[in-house]
Order: sequence, then structure tokens, then C-alpha cells
Amino acid sequence: MKETAVPRVLGENVLARTKFVEFKERAYVNKFGEERRWSLVSRVGGQQAVMIIPYFGDKLVVTREFRVPVGGCCYSFPAGLIDPGEDAARAAQRELDEETGLKIAEVLAVSPPVFNSPGLCDEAVTLVYARVEGTPSREKLEADEDIETLFLDREQVAAIMNDPANAIGAKAWIEFYHFVNKK
Amino acid sequence: MKETAVPRVLGENVLARTKFVEFKERAYVNKFGEERRWSLVSRVGGQQAVMIIPYFGDKLVVTREFRVPVGGCCYSFPAGLIDPGEDAARAAQRELDEETGLKIAEVLAVSPPVFNSPGLCDEAVTLVYARVEGTPSREKLEADEDIETLFLDREQVAAIMNDPANAIGAKAWIEFYHFVNKK
Repeated sequence: MKETAVPRVLGENVLARTKFVEFKERAYVNKFGEERRWSLVSRVGGQQAVMIIPYFGDKLVVTREFRVPVGGCCYSFPAGLIDPGEDAARAAQRELDEETGLKIAEVLAVSPPVFNSPGLCDEAVTLVYARVEGTPSREKLEADEDIETLFLDREQVAAIMNDPANAIGAKAWIEFYHFVNKK
Repeated sequence: MKETAVPRVLGENVLARTKFVEFKERAYVNKFGEERRWSLVSRVGGQQAVMIIPYFGDKLVVTREFRVPVGGCCYSFPAGLIDPGEDAARAAQRELDEETGLKIAEVLAVSPPVFNSPGLCDEAVTLVYARVEGTPSREKLEADEDIETLFLDREQVAAIMNDPANAIGAKAWIEFYHFVNKK
């Protein structure tokens, strides 16, 4: 078959919805001009997320958080949803404070909204690399948050990566890899 | 309230299902011992993914692929689902070949299965850093795959990151950040 079409989305319908998440099917045209369907999930209202990759001196700040989809604790970084009317920078500071008690001292880099799993969901997250300061606190955690804040050197990050019993976020693993292997 | 419980999952029910994806609600207990519900998605059969982060000499191999959830093209790395009976290393070689025509010359690092979006789905992906070789080819692409293979130096990766019109995968963005900023 010849590639005759530019792939594009035609429309979508919602198959099921909870308070926070929608499950959808999108109709699209593939490169041969054939109409197909693709399943995906969206956050209700298209709410986007922010994740902070926090450096504290020469240590990496890592969270260990109970995550329902993982069915246990997962190593990652402070993250959360951007509130309506809030920008990503402000959400980064708020989530960092709520989840760890720390403050952003200097923003090192900010990504555009990037896609966590572009084959499965349209969820986008803004990544904020930051130098952080302060003293960790669990006082502002919500009832459904169970988060431990860890300050880790290179050897400690390597130990987490090397224990197969640990669940780790994919973005965190890539950051860990570079943190451990940096010259 | 006092933290009286260790958070844990109690059970789940499926709200909707397509051929490849299930939308579920899980009952769990939070740290106060309260029962709550959490929405998530799973791939049917718990199928897991593999992603190759391919280095070709001093260039990074990047894919630009039409992605239905993104609604357009997304910069990322070769990736796909692990077939039943296949291990992650074999799936990495197969997907790299199918999507780009390239071969793995040397595996540099392999992650455990790590979580793309631990708040929203239980989808896990094995990350394979590899030195690759060969000549790119589009001959083995499937009908629903529209993938361009790019060999990029540091300046070209930085240009992709700096154009806000580009959709980029979150894992790819973190790798791009380190590729561009490495000493």
C-alpha cells in the first residue's frame, strides 16, 4: 500500500468518566488513509501536571510515595496537578512546599508541557529543574498523600536503582541514571 | 487526625474496556485508615513496554511519530510493547529494527520496569540505553505507525527543545536535557 494520507485525528467519544479521569476512543486516519480507533485517557478538564527535579547542594531530593496504580510505594520527584489559574512555576513551588516543606532557591531549567505516555494518555507535565533549600516537613501533606522526602547522594541513588524490589518512576529513573553516571 | 494505617489497595473493578486498554477504579485505604477510590488505566493483559535510548556515535537517535493521544507528531525514542513470551532485551532489538531499521551494537544500561505515570496508570516500561548501528529504514513500519528516524547532535536536540511548537515525550525531554548539557 502507498502512504497517501497525513495521519490526523477525526474526533472522539468518551467511554467512561470518573471525577478526575476520562476514558476515550479517538477516531483517526492512518498514513494509508484508513479510519481507525485508538483508546486513551485524559484528566477531566485537561488539567496538567508539574514535576520538580530538586537538587539540594550535591544531593538529589527524591520522594517515596504510596501510589494506588503501582499498588505500593514508588520513588519519584515532587509532583502534582496545576490548579486552575495557576502557572507551572507557581504550582512547582506550591507542590514542592506541600509535599516536602522545601522551597525553590533557583530555577535551573523549565520544560514545555511534555507527554508522560504519548501512546496512552494526553497527560502533559511541565518539568522544573531547581536548586532547593529549607527543612523537610510532612505537615502540609493531604490525607491521600503519604510521601517521604529523601536527600540522596550518588551511592544512595545507585542503591535504589540496583534493588529490584523498588518501584521507580520512569522519568526519575532517567534522572537517576544521569545523576549516578555524571562525570 | 493521626496516621494510623499503612496505605494499601483493597480491590478493583473495571469501568470500561477496549481491545487494548482497561479503565478501572481501585479501592484503597489511606494513611488515616479511610477507604477511598482511585481511577487508573491498565493495558489489557498487563502488557509492558520497552523503550530504547539509542546512541549512534556521538549522535542521539530520536523518533518523530504521529501519536493519537497527542493529536500530532511527538519527539521520543523507539518504543513498543513486549510480546507474550518475549523478554525486554529481545523486544528492544525487535522494536528498534521495526521502527528505525537500526541494530543494537552494545547495551549500555537496562532499567527494571519503571512507571510512566504512577498516579494515572500501572503501565511499566523497561528502558534500554544502547549504542546502535546500521542504516535507517521505514520498510518494517506497521500501517498505524508513522515514524521518522532522526540522528541529532547537541545543537539539533537543543533546537527541538527550544521550539514551543514541538510535542516531546517526558522521558525524551529529560534525556535531551542531559544530552545537551553534558560536559
